[in-house]
Amino acid sequence: MQVNELTQKECREILSRATVGRLACSHQDQPYVIPTYLAYDDGWIYVFATFGRKIEWMRENPKVCVEIEEVAAQSQWVSVIANGRYEELPEPQFAQERAHARNLLEKRHHWWINALAERRMNLPDQAVEPVFFRIHVDSVTGLRGETSGGA
Amino acid sequence: MQVNELTQKECREILSRATVGRLACSHQDQPYVIPTYLAYDDGWIYVFATFGRKIEWMRENPKVCVEIEEVAAQSQWVSVIANGRYEELPEPQFAQERAHARNLLEKRHHWWINALAERRMNLPDQAVEPVFFRIHVDSVTGLRGETSGGA
Repeated sequence: MQVNELTQKECREILSRATVGRLACSHQDQPYVIPTYLAYDDGWIYVFATFGRKIEWMRENPKVCVEIEEVAAQSQWVSVIANGRYEELPEPQFAQERAHARNLLEKRHHWWINALAERRMNLPDQAVEPVFFRIHVDSVTGLRGETSGGA
Repeated sequence: MQVNELTQKECREILSRATVGRLACSHQDQPYVIPTYLAYDDGWIYVFATFGRKIEWMRENPKVCVEIEEVAAQSQWVSVIANGRYEELPEPQFAQERAHARNLLEKRHHWWINALAERRMNLPDQAVEPVFFRIHVDSVTGLRGETSGGA
């Protein structure tokens, strides 16, 4: 098993293909990590979520870390870690960015956007308040693990 | 798509089956998340790692968060999030816990322990200093997402 560093270009390519990842935020040095649907485009990771603890925490502390994996087998994988900053996309000032995020995410997660729309019809709006946000990727690193020589 | 909370018992059962997870730590409110091999037993998550940034950070701030997933399909998954505290298992005072951790991890990740042993033969020891640690799971929550009625 060999573990080697990925180039910046490889990291960005893996981000571009990703549809899910794990988003870590922190509040008073208590970390919190959750899985999330996402879409990367041109330096930004776009996310669509419902209001909850992570949104509260990121509003207070915008420093976040996102982890992406592609796992072919237990000994054949890549992992990319992106450090960045949370930026919320409220209406109306971010209408264009919201439309862009929605477009990118719908391509990957059509069912999810629809599911949320259905939930909103059945529940008080506050309970499932949708939040669009994006993360500016300040730095990215990655590793590739693979078994050498078919071992 | 429905998303429902898991019971405490379900969360612990999922932890018990897990072989990989994502470990989040934090330093001066900068979160950091990485994938890791792990094994859960009786309230503790055991991890075997090589020395690096995460170890430095957790020595300084032992508050951590671990996320585990079982994904059958994009719309059928469970996710468990455990909050806990880092505890390193140095020799000789934790010899028994180290042996227990090694035994648990070897059952799941035999190849990984072997790979590290091979690397140690080829590199200066400091570069791949192995660190055993465990995380006391203080609290755990989980969600199950599933498509209802085959939708």
